Amino acid sequence: MSAAAGESGEDRLIAHFFRPLATAPGALGLHDDAAFFSPPAGCDLVLTKDALVAGVHFFADDAPGVVAQKALRVNLSDLAAKGADPAGFLLAIALPAEVAPAWLAAFCEGLGRDAAAYGCPLYGGDTVRTPGPLTVSVTAFGTLPTGSMVHRAGAQSGDAVFVTGTIGDAALGLLLRTSADAPWGLSAQERAHLLDRYLLPQPRNPLAAAVRAHASAGMDVSDGLVGDFAKLCRESGVSAEIDVRLVPLSSAARKAVAADAAALDAALTGGDDYEILCTVPARRAEEFCAAARAANVTVTAIGTIVEGNGPPRFMHRGAAMQFASGSFSHF
Amino acid sequence: MSAAAGESGEDRLIAHFFRPLATAPGALGLHDDAAFFSPPAGCDLVLTKDALVAGVHFFADDAPGVVAQKALRVNLSDLAAKGADPAGFLLAIALPAEVAPAWLAAFCEGLGRDAAAYGCPLYGGDTVRTPGPLTVSVTAFGTLPTGSMVHRAGAQSGDAVFVTGTIGDAALGLLLRTSADAPWGLSAQERAHLLDRYLLPQPRNPLAAAVRAHASAGMDVSDGLVGDFAKLCRESGVSAEIDVRLVPLSSAARKAVAADAAALDAALTGGDDYEILCTVPARRAEEFCAAARAANVTVTAIGTIVEGNGPPRFMHRGAAMQFASGSFSHF
Repeated sequence: MSAAAGESGEDRLIAHFFRPLATAPGALGLHDDAAFFSPPAGCDLVLTKDALVAGVHFFADDAPGVVAQKALRVNLSDLAAKGADPAGFLLAIALPAEVAPAWLAAFCEGLGRDAAAYGCPLYGGDTVRTPGPLTVSVTAFGTLPTGSMVHRAGAQSGDAVFVTGTIGDAALGLLLRTSADAPWGLSAQERAHLLDRYLLPQPRNPLAAAVRAHASAGMDVSDGLVGDFAKLCRESGVSAEIDVRLVPLSSAARKAVAADAAALDAALTGGDDYEILCTVPARRAEEFCAAARAANVTVTAIGTIVEGNGPPRFMHRGAAMQFASGSFSHF
Repeated sequence: MSAAAGESGEDRLIAHFFRPLATAPGALGLHDDAAFFSPPAGCDLVLTKDALVAGVHFFADDAPGVVAQKALRVNLSDLAAKGADPAGFLLAIALPAEVAPAWLAAFCEGLGRDAAAYGCPLYGGDTVRTPGPLTVSVTAFGTLPTGSMVHRAGAQSGDAVFVTGTIGDAALGLLLRTSADAPWGLSAQERAHLLDRYLLPQPRNPLAAAVRAHASAGMDVSDGLVGDFAKLCRESGVSAEIDVRLVPLSSAARKAVAADAAALDAALTGGDDYEILCTVPARRAEEFCAAARAANVTVTAIGTIVEGNGPPRFMHRGAAMQFASGSFSHF
């Protein structure tokens, strides 16, 4: 045994970088094999897990704090769309040998900031070496009253279709980032807005209580509005009609769409929005909107659920839009 | 939208390979963004997460079903050592492009077999592409009566130290696998035993109830008995004296140790045992042993907790053994 009484490099790394984030009593300061969580009486847990690979889900040279925030926020977004309040998360991180302590320090700084901001402390995880790209896997869990999770299935004919925030910014931001020229005649500020929306999702957790109180179905938009909404409709056994003019676009996205019709396709089918898409019975729409205002989250009605089996129609200039690809898929 | 009404390759992969494993109602057939779990009244959840990287934690040419079983079992072993009964798991898998459907089919076959055998169904996860090695991250959760999780801290002077099964087989199996010659004069059967113990942990979940009923402290031995026990003693603020003659070795391991003194070091400090190490107050030792017999899990008393701050002493031929390295660490 060493002078450090059995402390390995892995122990020291965990103690130095991750322990400060393990603020919940059940995390036991990461001193144990596992954590415990005492669920509040009358609550279900909602569980979700998303993995991010450098070079696939983020750029290897993205700021480490932002990578950490994104890894947590894409999971927080799932919890919000299901109507759950964040309770905690576990993290597995596979580190290439060349990752410097400064990178990890910045990663944990960003992670800790969001864990505090969203009330979602670290409960445990695993830190391993990889000869491949840096890979982060987060499992987040949240709570809600028993039986109140909002499913993808549940939308009914006549329900209003809502989305939070604005759609397409991240997809356009990614296009800006990967294209050499600067299209669409955007100002520096407009470019920055779209690039930032790609880098850092804004999960709508303050809306969770309103979603579980009022939504008949919901999901987060992560793989593109068109494809994700098709999934919700398929699971619910319904179709829908969306008025594309109503789909909320940021001023930067509006400018891009005005300059280039293809940008509208990208905005509607691109991924990484991390906005909530939900359906609300017409009689509850007003109350849902009031709750959203109280939660300070912008929601916009973009269409209506209708009977049928086909994918939702995105009506634009009197016709249903045709999309080259519906939804992002790794496979 | 395609003729498949919005079904992506990722959707089809999940439907074909993973959906059959999602047998719990709360998994919603993997049709949703997240799963729900209704915790039994009066229960805590125990949460654990371990990641495995091809070429680091397993060999890239290991049988895919065995890789899946190992990924789940290392987590099940954590639950067992904490006294928790398995309830479910989430899986993130990062797949290189060259992984064939047959590989994934075999992976899921092994995973499903263990999920059923251990009563630990799939609740969700994520399937992504990686340009790096295949990486698997499992988050498992279990339940136990509120407040009954067994911690690493808690061992008291006078407690008996127990381990399950046999120690060192996996470490010796790994040595066999990575050394060109065939040392120690083992029979084919003995070699197969050690190799198999490296490949496939045998988590001691049937002992979980006895552990939470009787153990003052516990953990699973994953990074070597010497190093892991030092951690338990450090967290408990105690020391210990272990009689190395009492440490349970398989007949294959005994033969290796008889042929090569260095094999004893490897057995005691090597990793991948996935046996439970726990301390039991002397007055409860008999009852613990009876419960272990009833659960059909072999437990062996190997020493005693004593007061002090130093690492546990492993007494061998009248002296405390000195170890070159205490515990496996990635860093």
